[in-house]
Amino acid sequence: MSLDPVLSRIDADLSAATDRLFDLLRIPSISTDPAYKSDCDRAADWLVADLASFGIEASKRPTPGHPMVVGHVKGDGPHVLFYGHYDVQPVDPLDLWDRDPFDPAIEDTAKGKVIRARGSSDDKGQLMTFVEACRAWKSVHGALPCSITFFFEGEEESGSPSLIPFLKANAEELRADVALICDTGLFESRVPSIITQLRGLCGEEITLTGPDKDLHSGMYGGAAMNPLRMLARILGNLHDDDGRIQVPHFYDGVPELPEEIAAQWQALGFDHTAFLGDVGLSEPAGEADRSALEMIWSRPTAEINGMIGGYTGDGFKTVLPSKASAKVSFRLVGTQDPHAIRRNFREWVQDQLPHDVTASFKAHGASPASQMETSHPAFEAARAVLGAEWGHEAAFTGCGGSIPVAGYFKSILDMDSMLVGWGKDDDQIHSPNEKYDLESFHKGIRSWARILEAISR
Amino acid sequence: MSLDPVLSRIDADLSAATDRLFDLLRIPSISTDPAYKSDCDRAADWLVADLASFGIEASKRPTPGHPMVVGHVKGDGPHVLFYGHYDVQPVDPLDLWDRDPFDPAIEDTAKGKVIRARGSSDDKGQLMTFVEACRAWKSVHGALPCSITFFFEGEEESGSPSLIPFLKANAEELRADVALICDTGLFESRVPSIITQLRGLCGEEITLTGPDKDLHSGMYGGAAMNPLRMLARILGNLHDDDGRIQVPHFYDGVPELPEEIAAQWQALGFDHTAFLGDVGLSEPAGEADRSALEMIWSRPTAEINGMIGGYTGDGFKTVLPSKASAKVSFRLVGTQDPHAIRRNFREWVQDQLPHDVTASFKAHGASPASQMETSHPAFEAARAVLGAEWGHEAAFTGCGGSIPVAGYFKSILDMDSMLVGWGKDDDQIHSPNEKYDLESFHKGIRSWARILEAISR
Repeated sequence: MSLDPVLSRIDADLSAATDRLFDLLRIPSISTDPAYKSDCDRAADWLVADLASFGIEASKRPTPGHPMVVGHVKGDGPHVLFYGHYDVQPVDPLDLWDRDPFDPAIEDTAKGKVIRARGSSDDKGQLMTFVEACRAWKSVHGALPCSITFFFEGEEESGSPSLIPFLKANAEELRADVALICDTGLFESRVPSIITQLRGLCGEEITLTGPDKDLHSGMYGGAAMNPLRMLARILGNLHDDDGRIQVPHFYDGVPELPEEIAAQWQALGFDHTAFLGDVGLSEPAGEADRSALEMIWSRPTAEINGMIGGYTGDGFKTVLPSKASAKVSFRLVGTQDPHAIRRNFREWVQDQLPHDVTASFKAHGASPASQMETSHPAFEAARAVLGAEWGHEAAFTGCGGSIPVAGYFKSILDMDSMLVGWGKDDDQIHSPNEKYDLESFHKGIRSWARILEAISR
Repeated sequence: MSLDPVLSRIDADLSAATDRLFDLLRIPSISTDPAYKSDCDRAADWLVADLASFGIEASKRPTPGHPMVVGHVKGDGPHVLFYGHYDVQPVDPLDLWDRDPFDPAIEDTAKGKVIRARGSSDDKGQLMTFVEACRAWKSVHGALPCSITFFFEGEEESGSPSLIPFLKANAEELRADVALICDTGLFESRVPSIITQLRGLCGEEITLTGPDKDLHSGMYGGAAMNPLRMLARILGNLHDDDGRIQVPHFYDGVPELPEEIAAQWQALGFDHTAFLGDVGLSEPAGEADRSALEMIWSRPTAEINGMIGGYTGDGFKTVLPSKASAKVSFRLVGTQDPHAIRRNFREWVQDQLPHDVTASFKAHGASPASQMETSHPAFEAARAVLGAEWGHEAAFTGCGGSIPVAGYFKSILDMDSMLVGWGKDDDQIHSPNEKYDLESFHKGIRSWARILEAISR
């Protein structure tokens, strides 16, 4: 089946495709807020109907939370599973939006046309690039070039509580040769990027207790142990002067980057000055002997994500607090074991506690890093064809964040994931005024058409 | 004028004195909350009327905030000024009170009868012990044994914004031989205690800024500077391993305790195990080579009173915050200069800042320590007679907190202050279920009668 008429069809149909996306964007499917439960349901129904509209049999599948959508279509060639999510982030603070987040519009900007709406980039717009590519194939050739399972989730923005049970309960139905996940972006907003390694995450909340009630620092100051002082002292020791993390055995399982990948990353010519300059910074703050790209893609981190204790309102209160707490997270790479790191962190804290201070801990998630097995032909096929669409050779890259679904596909379905997406750095996902470039939408659809053709050869 | 009939009169009049205090306690004179402005006014009116009821000419004196009450009575002998405050702390959380905080009652407890109400101990009950002693003198002898200026403030619990201007504007009228201040307590709830040294205070708020917006730790974690990490690191260095404060020149002006005072404190047999045990602690947490009493009375401190940054709600958010801030206070002794300490602290912080982190500071008050000149005969006179009332010899003690009015009396009116009071450690001032022992009220009145007699000899 030839590609060119599919690409022409995509170009001709862009305006209608945009209208369809707008229909989906109008549904405020905020998964974390129970007030929008029926809207999540409505978004799932919309997807089932949209797949049906070009002949894909799909159904809404209940979970204890929001429904999944699963559709299947048979074709020659390999079997791929496509994953996207139809739920979106909350929109507050609403007053920072320049328009109703659920009233999508095309806007002309200095950088070109954008689709402005909550979910335009994360992830409804991205999800629909794949759907539209399939629609165009079907309309031109009457069939798709390979077998496809469509798998849409409605809880990605609220921790995916139903995902693991659903994957386990439907493993046979969902297993494919490879998963395609469209929830990421272009490297530096221009280079098509196939993510082959994702950092893991271990989240930990620590609360130190000193006195059993808040004290007045005039009466007790000097004699009473202040847990804020100890929390600052302990967490102030988390890194040494060179930015190395001091929790014992922390670096167990952290690999050096293979030379081949290191060379590819080097070739990307990452402009860390611009990357950091965008957020008001100038110098990479991680381990002294690492490049900025390593710091965000292939090196582990320890960060304090939140800290609170004592009086934090206006003015001043000379209180010695009873408690102080912090949220700490570790980004993990290689074979670092999140559970071992949690254990070692807790011991390391306990070992530093002085008399009269006790620590309690709360676990907040633990996922190991993912390393994709890129030997599946889909990876090289995709890399080979994306350059033609974007004018830049595609690269295998890392991702500093965690995309847990890729890990679950591997551990539960024994299926590797190819993560590729068309988002740009300034899409403002999770923030007010989220947008998706019309270019991302259009070239994204064309990209999927190219990838489907390449992996089906 | 003989003392015994005055003491008998006080005993006979206790029930009526309690009723009068209840009238005052019923007025919710919360100075910090504008909703209670007219109540503060009403409390001032009540005091003017109460002084008038036994022949003291007094008036309500307007300020930009709540009014002062000033009254004068001429007598033979020395001239004393008595200071107390009629305003009270807010009462929230109201649901932790066992009764309406402004519906006073006598309650029987395992430790004896108590007056339960907001302000019963801090400071309406204490203030009225002096007023009742004067009333009894007047009623028995038709006159007072010395000249007295009554000076009641209505803004003590909200930072006394009008106090300095009022003292300056009325210096001639208010100056006396010595000030008597009743806003403190018995040492270990039993030993009458004349406070001769008060710590000063320097409050400082520090905000560190890293990136110019909050960042996602997946995208930026490792490469971006996290201001929470730096704040923990810097404030974790505030003390060395022996509890010494590491800000340069911090100990300039910190005196060693005179042997005579050290001996008096030694004789108090301070039970630091009980003092700390009451709040769930076991060991003094200050400088390694100092006693617990020194730590709270005569040694300077540095404490983190509040700290906040990043995500501090339920659950977890992998944010790298743009800002992190802390409130830090220093309790000062001897001739430590609060302004120099502020300057040195700021420099010390600046010197530790890495690239890409900026610090801003906000000053929150600065008052030097106060050391009373105990050569005025009132001090020895009071110390000599209080033992008879309380069954324990009175002591010259220190106070870890700051009572700024004593410093202002010295600096503006060149008048030393004798701080003596009848509160107990479990009075729960500033907290729900505040109380004042009926014994404190009764013996407090009798104590003032004894002190007035002794200093008028």
